[in-house]
Amino acid sequence: MHDLFILYRRPEDPQAFDRHYESTHVPLVRDLPLLQEFTWGKVEAGQAEDCYLVARLSYSSKDDAETSLASQAGVASVDDLANFAHAGVSVMNVPRAGGGR
Amino acid sequence: MHDLFILYRRPEDPQAFDRHYESTHVPLVRDLPLLQEFTWGKVEAGQAEDCYLVARLSYSSKDDAETSLASQAGVASVDDLANFAHAGVSVMNVPRAGGGR
Repeated sequence: MHDLFILYRRPEDPQAFDRHYESTHVPLVRDLPLLQEFTWGKVEAGQAEDCYLVARLSYSSKDDAETSLASQAGVASVDDLANFAHAGVSVMNVPRAGGGR
Repeated sequence: MHDLFILYRRPEDPQAFDRHYESTHVPLVRDLPLLQEFTWGKVEAGQAEDCYLVARLSYSSKDDAETSLASQAGVASVDDLANFAHAGVSVMNVPRAGGGR
């Protein structure tokens, strides 16, 4: 498995961010080809104060992740970041090394 | 679901970190009661240069996560951080809001 972790910095206007994320961005992510699993959630207040929302996109391989992001739906998802992630966003490629349970 | 994301900062001695993480810390995490899923991986070079390794521990609820970390195995896991996470570690509590696929 190959995971993409997307960390969004705390926005100036959380309500506007939430509205756009849930109504527009989440449907775009769900359209991504080859995506195996998608989860997201908002970081509880009082921790890592800079980080507002964490998403994880899981693919079978790094090749699949790259193909997915290069597709029409992938380009639309990445382009959409400019519409709401003004405070900044980090994308990390993390080949899954292990786990359990 | 309730996810704990653990972000480790890049260590001074990655080989020593890796050795301890894989041989000692991973088995401690696997012993945690109530844990539903555990995955981890190392961030690919050239991205988020500060972040070295990301782990996700998934529980059915926040209550389960708290009970797990308060158990004997939980205390042992948290105490073990002092043995290898010298460069710093962030723990984020993230109630899972949504997802798909």
